[in-house]
This record gives sequence, C-alpha cells and structure tokens, in this order.
Amino acid sequence: MSSLSGFPEWLPAGRIIEQAFIDALRTTFELHGFAGIETRAVEPLSQLTSKGETSKEVYLLSRLQAEPGELEADPAKQLGLHFDLTVPFARYVADNAGLLTFPFKRYQIQKVWRGERPQEGRFREFIQADIDIVGDGALPLHNDAEIPLIMHEALAGLPIPPVTIHVSNRKVAQGFYQSIGIQDADLIEVLRVVDKLDKIGPRAVAAELTETVGATAEQAERALALATITGAEPEQVRGAVLEALQGAQPSELLDQGLDELTTLLATAARRRPGALIADLKIARGLDYYTGSVYESFMAGHEDLGSVCSGGRYDSLVTNGKRSFPGVGISIGVSRLLARVIGQGLVSVTRPVATCVLVAVSDEEHRAVSEAVSQALRARGISADVVPSAAKFGKQIRFADKRSIPFVWFPGADGEADSVKDIRSGEQVEADAASWAPPQEDLVPRVIAGQG
Amino acid sequence: MSSLSGFPEWLPAGRIIEQAFIDALRTTFELHGFAGIETRAVEPLSQLTSKGETSKEVYLLSRLQAEPGELEADPAKQLGLHFDLTVPFARYVADNAGLLTFPFKRYQIQKVWRGERPQEGRFREFIQADIDIVGDGALPLHNDAEIPLIMHEALAGLPIPPVTIHVSNRKVAQGFYQSIGIQDADLIEVLRVVDKLDKIGPRAVAAELTETVGATAEQAERALALATITGAEPEQVRGAVLEALQGAQPSELLDQGLDELTTLLATAARRRPGALIADLKIARGLDYYTGSVYESFMAGHEDLGSVCSGGRYDSLVTNGKRSFPGVGISIGVSRLLARVIGQGLVSVTRPVATCVLVAVSDEEHRAVSEAVSQALRARGISADVVPSAAKFGKQIRFADKRSIPFVWFPGADGEADSVKDIRSGEQVEADAASWAPPQEDLVPRVIAGQG
Repeated sequence: MSSLSGFPEWLPAGRIIEQAFIDALRTTFELHGFAGIETRAVEPLSQLTSKGETSKEVYLLSRLQAEPGELEADPAKQLGLHFDLTVPFARYVADNAGLLTFPFKRYQIQKVWRGERPQEGRFREFIQADIDIVGDGALPLHNDAEIPLIMHEALAGLPIPPVTIHVSNRKVAQGFYQSIGIQDADLIEVLRVVDKLDKIGPRAVAAELTETVGATAEQAERALALATITGAEPEQVRGAVLEALQGAQPSELLDQGLDELTTLLATAARRRPGALIADLKIARGLDYYTGSVYESFMAGHEDLGSVCSGGRYDSLVTNGKRSFPGVGISIGVSRLLARVIGQGLVSVTRPVATCVLVAVSDEEHRAVSEAVSQALRARGISADVVPSAAKFGKQIRFADKRSIPFVWFPGADGEADSVKDIRSGEQVEADAASWAPPQEDLVPRVIAGQG
Repeated sequence: MSSLSGFPEWLPAGRIIEQAFIDALRTTFELHGFAGIETRAVEPLSQLTSKGETSKEVYLLSRLQAEPGELEADPAKQLGLHFDLTVPFARYVADNAGLLTFPFKRYQIQKVWRGERPQEGRFREFIQADIDIVGDGALPLHNDAEIPLIMHEALAGLPIPPVTIHVSNRKVAQGFYQSIGIQDADLIEVLRVVDKLDKIGPRAVAAELTETVGATAEQAERALALATITGAEPEQVRGAVLEALQGAQPSELLDQGLDELTTLLATAARRRPGALIADLKIARGLDYYTGSVYESFMAGHEDLGSVCSGGRYDSLVTNGKRSFPGVGISIGVSRLLARVIGQGLVSVTRPVATCVLVAVSDEEHRAVSEAVSQALRARGISADVVPSAAKFGKQIRFADKRSIPFVWFPGADGEADSVKDIRSGEQVEADAASWAPPQEDLVPRVIAGQG
C-alpha cells in the first residue's frame, strides 16, 4: 500500500492479482458481447454535479501554469475528475448517440477519484468495473435480469467467497408508500431512513420516520414490514409485499413494480439459481434509479457492505429529444481486492511473470543464454537471463529469491542444455526449441487461499 | 474523438485497437520477465516539479469541498496528476526498495496528464507504456541494449510500419564537447541548440552556438560534424566521431561513452539487425539522462517525431544512502494510435466482441435462445441474444448492422439448430455444444490497412 493515504498501490504480486481479476471480468463481459470503452478521466464540473449525492466529493483540476484569471474568465471550462463511471457513460452515449448501435452494451474498467478529506481512511483513487445496457427510447425488461446475472457469472469466476445479489425495485417501494398514504415528495427521505434498518434497528427507524416525514405508527409498522421482506421465490415475495400492506389497496405503481420484480426473480431462478434474492429494504442512495436496484454481499464479508451495486435508470441519459433508458451494475474492484488480499483469501502462485531463469556461465557467453531465452519466449514461455554471471549456486539463489521455478543451464562445448526445477531439485536435459513447463507453471496463477 | 479538446476518447472499434495494442505490448514485456505495476495518478507537487522540464505542465488537484485554508495550512499536501511514468516509478522504487528484488524490471501502461493550455491541439490526457530496469547500486551495461531491443520487439508485434530506434550517449556528447573545449556548464544549452538541426539547418545552428555559448567557428563546425553522424556499424561510428574531433584529443569521458555506444550497437547488430542505429544528434531534453539515450521513428511518419524515447539515468532514483541506476524507454501509445487509426493504417475485422447473434422466434422462447448463447460462451465463443423478437429478416439485419458474422437459429419443435454466416449466406445445421467459428472469426482482430 502506498504512503499517500487513500491512494492504494500494489507491490508486483498484488498487481498480478488485480490484473487477473480485471482480465477475468473483461473475458466474461466480452463473451456476453459487451463493448469495452474508456472515457476521459475528467468531465466538466457542471456535468459532475448535475447527478446524485456523491457530487460533493469531486477533485477539481487547475493548471499549475494557468494565467491569472484564466478560469474565472470561463467557469464552464472548470474540469473535475470523474467519481464514478455512470455519469461519464451517460455523457458518452449522449455525445455519440449517432455513432453507436442500440441497445448498446458496454463494459468499462477504470479508475475513479473521490475528493475525500485526507486521513479519513477512505479510498480517494480506486478501480471500478461497470456493465450497462442502454436502449434508444425503450429498453425491454429482460435486461434488468441480464445485468445482475452477468455480473454474478463474472464474480463466480473469481477465486473469492460466493456473492449474492440482492434486488428490489423503486416502483415497489414508491408504490407501496403511495398505497399506505405517504407522499411521493417524502419518498427519498423514507428510503434513506429505512436504509438504516440494519444499523439502527426497527424501533429507531420507526421513530425517525415519525419525526422526519410525520409517519403514523401504522405507516411506520407497514414500512418496516416491507423492509424486512426477503426471498427468491417470486410469488412468495409478491404475497409478502401485499400482506405488508395490511389491507391497504395496492397502487397501480406497486402492481407494476411487483410484476417487474417477480419477472426478474423468475428469470434468475431459471438461469442462475441462488444468484439473486429479493431484499425489499434495498433502495440505493442515488435518485436517478427508476426501477430495479441491486446491491451485493460476499458470504462472510457482509461487513464490507455492498461489493457491487446498480439499477435501472430510465431518464439519466438524454440527448435533446431522445432519451436512452439504461440498466447497469458496478463493482468496486479496489475495495474488493483490498479485502481479499488483505485477509489472505487469494494469493498468487509466484510474484513474477518469469518462468525460466537462464544461467550465464561467464559474461563472454551471455549471447548463448540470450539465444536460449529468446527461443523460449518465441514459444510463449516467459524467460529472463541472469543479470550477471556468478557461481551457479548464486544464480540458483537468485531464481529462488524471486520464486522463478526453473533455471536453465546452457550446455558447454556441445553438451546438451539442462533445466532444473529448483523446487524439487530435479534436473533434466532439455532443448529450448521443444521443452515446455507443466501448464500450471507457465504463468503466475491467482488462487484462493494463501499460496 | 471527444468533444473536450486534448482528451481523446474512442468509439468501440477504436478502443478494440487500443486494447489490442496494450495487450500485445504487455505480452511481450511479460515474456521478458517484466513485472506490471500501476502507480497512483497523483504525486505530491514537490515530487513532480523536482525533475526535468515538463514540470511546467502539471494539473493541480483541489477538493471541491475543501475547507477554507485547508491547502494553505499545509502546502506539502498539494497534489498534482503525474505527467509521465518515470517520476512516479522512481518514487515507487524509493518507497518500496526494501520489498523489491533487484535488478527490478517493470512495465507500466497508464494514462498521464499534461496541464496544457486549452485549444492548443495537444493531448492533455494520454496513455504511455514504459519499461525500465533499475539496479541496486549498479546496473550492468548490457541492460542499455536490452531495453531498446525489447521495445523494438514489442513494436514489431504491432500492425504498424517498421520503427527504427536511434541511439546516442550523453557521455559521447559531453566528452566530445569537453574535447573541443566547450565548458560542461554549457552542455545542456549546446544539446538544446544542436537538437534543432533538422528544423533550422546547420547554418542557423552554428550561428546560435556562437551566440549562446560563444562557440568559435571551428567548435561549431566540429559540433555539427558530430551531430550528423549516423550508422549501425560500431567501429565505423567510433571512427566518424574521432574524425569529427579534427585532431582534438578525445577526453576520457568521450572514450568511455564511445565504448558504451559501440558495445550497445554490437549487441543490437547481433540480436536484432536493423533495429537500432546510432544517431549522434539525439540528446533528449530531460537532464536526468546520464548515458545511453533513445528516440524512435516510424518509417514514413518521421513528421510525427519520436514515437518512443528514453535513456539511462544513474542518479534519478535515490533512497537516502542507496542509489538505483536505471535505464528505460517509453512509448506514447495514444499519439501512435491517433496517427495509425487516423490514417487508416490499422483497422479491426469487426467493431464488436460478439461472434454469434442468437435469434429469438418469439418472446416466449427467449429462454431457449439464452441457453444456446450460454452453451457457446461456455466454450469461449462470444454470443448475444437478439434484444427483441422480430421477423428473422430483421434479426439478420440487426447482426449485419453490427458486423456480427453469425446468426444462430434455434430449431423449432425438435428440429436441429442452424447457423448462418451472414457474409456468405451459407447456413448449416449446428449444435451449440460442438460448433465453432473459423479461428479468424472468433474475436475481432486488429489488422494492417483498412478493414
């Protein structure tokens, strides 16, 4: 970890794990036909502050060599670092709408920045991996199941504890509160209070609901009944929500939300049983979500909070007259890695790419060793020549210290070459044009548990 | 390209090319045993401004929600975005010296930022790919050949015109100027003036040398004689340099520099004939270089300037008492891509990952199509289900518009599935558990020329 608080930096072994996670996510996303894009790190400040609550934590840029008054002359040119990948993606789609084909499926794995106060112990730079699907004018509901199922498949490919994706639907929540007589204007506040259920408990939530939006005891009780509903079986979830109404008449919006949620649950149960569960207290802080919402928890690491989150946004992306409804989910890669590496849940079989270290008998014969290593590389085997000729024992220790598994000895005076597995000590004759290591030694592998 | 000047952004097809270039570079670097690292995007301003001339073009950060006086209270906390990868790497090595093994070989492919004035037409955000080797206390000379040869091998793996790496040596230049009686204090200025040779011609260079460092006509003539030397044959280069002295006695430093340069040339001639050429006018603006220096030119695109540059730095990295001499080279990936994509020198066989679009006969049978696509993906074939059921002709046009090469039709009522190559129109029976596309259609491929 780095010496600058909030800016994580890995040693080479950690970076191999990070890169392997990114590669695995990318492979899954591309198998599903998602296009990889990158957006610039900066957005105009006006763009960054137009959506959602995290806009407070933005890093602004200024040029060290700015002329006096340069920025004041045109505040519209004020740039800030992006704090997530959703807002930049919305801008990218609006900018390029005429050049993209819809529905547009994209993944994006990039660093984001949050201008947190120093020494708060939070990440100020971290990697996110997002997938989103946006349609032109409309986006069918089956995409609301597609997105969390693909992310679940991607996470299941990583050597980490199982992740369960919890789903709810904004229309269910809003429709439910309408049905029990809470004003739409109070919805965000109610969601915010109910979101604290796990932290402060049902009594405190009920009290706060009464205090902030003037809920009656009966309304608070019904809200709590809704928030405690979980389950994977669609009709059971629908029944529980209607029961929580305690006789109130379901609003049209609630019916629509329940249809969406139960359809999503049915698709998930068919395609990846156990991946998704309805959890009606999930709300998400960002107010651009309009339907499905997702949060995800890693088994045994619920204290970490949601490891990936997202939802349906019907009105986030607009471009003059056209609107582009979308649904997406985002995984906090750095935060996940910090946990699984920090607790030794994953490790790497070796901390270097190098599979073979080619020994040098003396500096005059370095070219012979270079030729061997180049022959190995030409067949995809990572090889390096020892940096300086020394006694072979010292060269073997050089490999050992770096966990390079094989040392190659070019044969002197027409003798055959040989290669030594320095873990077993076994040494065999070998030809650089044909020898290959066991498949599991070819490249460093990321594995569950301590290596 | 993006709507914000200097911040390039690719459409999906361009990003496939960018990603393929990055992947190819990474593969070569890892085959040579380089460790991939990433450093944080920010460094303390004091770190950024302590080296070299580009320190003027830094983006500073400030928190949008900073408390009044927060920064003024501790100017040491002022952060800026890194403008290259060498300065951050030097800091990373110094920070982690006790945890790394030396010689440490690392590659680093990341975005960097330059706080250029808006509307200057220069990149303000771009990707660089660097390789460096640093030793603990000492670093043998053969690394000075290793670095440009590996970069040349990496570039040769890209579908771009051939690149030649031009090399010189700071000790040759400094030693030569010592030998002809120019003060060491004037060295940087002389190098700066001579560097303009191609732009302003020999007469203007001679005049400026006289004007700025008081060179005599004879000194200017000798300096120009040195600057025009090029060649790949080591002893011919040595001879030409000594001849340019016109009888002056070579200084010890010149002899040392010539030994280093000719050794490098001999190694290069043996290992990659044609890859490297001596070019004695190469100097590099940054004053931390102490020996070998590199610039590189792409055939037919010399107007682009150097596409990758670097050199040996014996004193850049220090950590209290220890010093870590290094040698490295950096390729400007974004600038190279902008040229080769912009001029149609490279293209991609298709702009989407998707290889197969699975048709849907009607929404009730979407699950059948989902199962087909999942079976294909399980065998590494990128597949997507058509977003909404429509007439098959319309579904084929959907694939055609995206350049997806194959459309899959699930068989109705126990009939066999079939797959259609929509380019040839050929349609054959197929089983999702065994069918595979031709190898060249599996993933989008980046190729030379217009696709």
